[in-house]
Amino acid sequence: MTKPLSIAVAGLGTVGAGVLALLRDNAATITARAGRPLAVTAVSARDRTRDRGISLSGLRWYEDPVALAHDPHVDVVVEAIGGSDGQAAALVRAALAAGKPVVTANKALLALHGAELAATAEAKGVALGFEAAVAGGIPVIKAIREGLAANDISRITGILNGTCNYILTTMRERGREFAEALAEAQKLGYAEADPAFDIDGVDAAHKLAILAALAFGRPVDFAAVHVEGIREISALDIRLAEELGYRIKLLGIARRTDAGVETRVHPCMVPIAHPIARVDGVFNAVVAEGDFCGRIVLEGRGAGAGPTASAVVADLIDIARDRRTPVWGVAGSALSQVPSVPMGKRVGAYYLRLMVVDRPGVIADVTAALRDHHISLESMLQRGRAPGEAVPVVVTTHDCEEAQMRAAIARIQSLEAVVEKPALIRIEAL
Amino acid sequence: MTKPLSIAVAGLGTVGAGVLALLRDNAATITARAGRPLAVTAVSARDRTRDRGISLSGLRWYEDPVALAHDPHVDVVVEAIGGSDGQAAALVRAALAAGKPVVTANKALLALHGAELAATAEAKGVALGFEAAVAGGIPVIKAIREGLAANDISRITGILNGTCNYILTTMRERGREFAEALAEAQKLGYAEADPAFDIDGVDAAHKLAILAALAFGRPVDFAAVHVEGIREISALDIRLAEELGYRIKLLGIARRTDAGVETRVHPCMVPIAHPIARVDGVFNAVVAEGDFCGRIVLEGRGAGAGPTASAVVADLIDIARDRRTPVWGVAGSALSQVPSVPMGKRVGAYYLRLMVVDRPGVIADVTAALRDHHISLESMLQRGRAPGEAVPVVVTTHDCEEAQMRAAIARIQSLEAVVEKPALIRIEAL
Repeated sequence: MTKPLSIAVAGLGTVGAGVLALLRDNAATITARAGRPLAVTAVSARDRTRDRGISLSGLRWYEDPVALAHDPHVDVVVEAIGGSDGQAAALVRAALAAGKPVVTANKALLALHGAELAATAEAKGVALGFEAAVAGGIPVIKAIREGLAANDISRITGILNGTCNYILTTMRERGREFAEALAEAQKLGYAEADPAFDIDGVDAAHKLAILAALAFGRPVDFAAVHVEGIREISALDIRLAEELGYRIKLLGIARRTDAGVETRVHPCMVPIAHPIARVDGVFNAVVAEGDFCGRIVLEGRGAGAGPTASAVVADLIDIARDRRTPVWGVAGSALSQVPSVPMGKRVGAYYLRLMVVDRPGVIADVTAALRDHHISLESMLQRGRAPGEAVPVVVTTHDCEEAQMRAAIARIQSLEAVVEKPALIRIEAL
Repeated sequence: MTKPLSIAVAGLGTVGAGVLALLRDNAATITARAGRPLAVTAVSARDRTRDRGISLSGLRWYEDPVALAHDPHVDVVVEAIGGSDGQAAALVRAALAAGKPVVTANKALLALHGAELAATAEAKGVALGFEAAVAGGIPVIKAIREGLAANDISRITGILNGTCNYILTTMRERGREFAEALAEAQKLGYAEADPAFDIDGVDAAHKLAILAALAFGRPVDFAAVHVEGIREISALDIRLAEELGYRIKLLGIARRTDAGVETRVHPCMVPIAHPIARVDGVFNAVVAEGDFCGRIVLEGRGAGAGPTASAVVADLIDIARDRRTPVWGVAGSALSQVPSVPMGKRVGAYYLRLMVVDRPGVIADVTAALRDHHISLESMLQRGRAPGEAVPVVVTTHDCEEAQMRAAIARIQSLEAVVEKPALIRIEAL
């Protein structure tokens, strides 16, 4: 038995306390798998007196998390503070600069500062582990970075936010509108009091930026991700999707095309038969498509104390075993400079749902707008007749460019008979 | 750039040729991920002249694969010969003894000789990679051994044989009997001319023995695996399963109970809503349940040149990066001695389908036999009436012990009115 790995944990919220509990509960298993004990020896948190259900006796306590980076008896730092900047970033920077490996669950930090942090980690020759930053307990980072490392990846598709998936599932299963489903998710603890980060797609976009960097071996680029959330999804669209053979999911998609790499997070219609369409509730899933491995689907719990701690400790075991992988899968000098493709260049099919006043000539105006932008129709559906009143009209298109579609919608929206903002949902042929 | 990893490949069938093609096609990606080029420098195969669609020029050629182990210019040996003994075993033993890391796709070899080979690898301090031995392109070995390493695993459940899954899927979707579906699978190349290894469950059992050793950190024990194949599954049972809300799948199950570890491969009825029930055709899936990560589902292609090569080269990249993990996840000295639980101790529900002569008193005799062995019924179904002729009678039970069920069946089978061997399928509450 070699000497224990001495671990400092910064932040004792859900993630940090979960890591302590896991290291305590599964100590024997973890010691065997790591080849030596994993021992937490120092912690930092805001409130020393709060009852977290775990004993902190015998641990060195720091008010200032950054001090953990300078404790000479600490081998590795777990950052469980959260947030893309502030103390979390200060601690990770200080620890790497001090030559200590870091493990974090912080997707915002990685998505925004991952390139800089990776450069420091590489210069110092230390690990920066972030399995817990994406899809919680599902080992997607390891799978893409090591398990599928021999493949040229063509596409990564993920249900990356359990809150959104829970809300969309509730809307479909119980016919709820968005606001009701959100309130329910909040009551159950699946959505935060301020849910914007989740429901506006930002959290999923952080994770997608990380997956795209790994899959395509390029610098992480959050700014290039096109982000839309689920606030505008209606129960009506979910019902109509079902009739057309689709499910509506908030997906993160990173795709390699001839033009470069597309990265986008937005509601999608996916064929009901596709495995990702059936991933419901708070579950996450990631689909990776490689040229030799084919399509791999990984599914499980994307959040919560247990799954997140499982991922953090997996990274710690890698460090204890001295298993080393460059932060983004390849050395900084080997990162590719393949360009990002702007959203306007997305090519695919679209679902467009309008509310129009039911009177002669409206459909002709709508279809003329589409024709003038060279968009051809796959199907058209007018549901119900109510002369003089607003009724839904649904159009699905053949493949066209997003920019064309946007231009057509601008014209359609200006028609007097179109009484609401059109609902546009992209159809993904996965 | 450090020096290339010099690779010898023994066997140039589907797997060996696939590895050469992958290393050629994705050389740039692989070099970046491995931190250095992966170069095949020597090969061994039976026939030097056969056209395999890949160039062998410039490679050292050996008639005798074992000679690869002694080539001083070879860093690592890929064994793609196959078979649990003979040349494959001789080569792997020789290479490990010579201090060369080995990568293999050979599940039979690992299942039968894995304990011995791991001991040699550990003594010599070299890697023995076998990601390709289980579930092809899905990185299940890495996921269980590293990704979920912090968890105490309670159960592994897998669809581990694509041939069987294809046959069962065809039987269900097209109402075929087993023999027809097998013939179809053979015509499509999804089943061998001699299909026994696949359809009798032996291939799945090899893979399950490997997964159980990893999941529970115990010596691989193929002899302890209870093995049944799918030859006796009928279209009638598949139809009746569907009516009861189940799918029939050939599953490998490794489960930790208070008594020890169960390992078994047999047809199962699984609830239609469970993710594994929907994995159809030649696809494989593995479900791992850990105490902190929860349920993780991994799905993809379990066989074929591309997926298998993807897994072999992932292991080669680990070796190129010098990422080291003990063969069975923990050092030999840390392997646990938890006992195997015999099949007679399996506790669960059962589906029993009898063909009985439709006459008074038969059902009373059947139910009396079950009652006398303390088995309580969940449901009973007699379909159709044909006085004096054989009709199906289906019983599903509450949980009972396998040994009780076997005893009850022995008595039922001896009833004069029971005209065929009863069909018994275990219902798994996953």
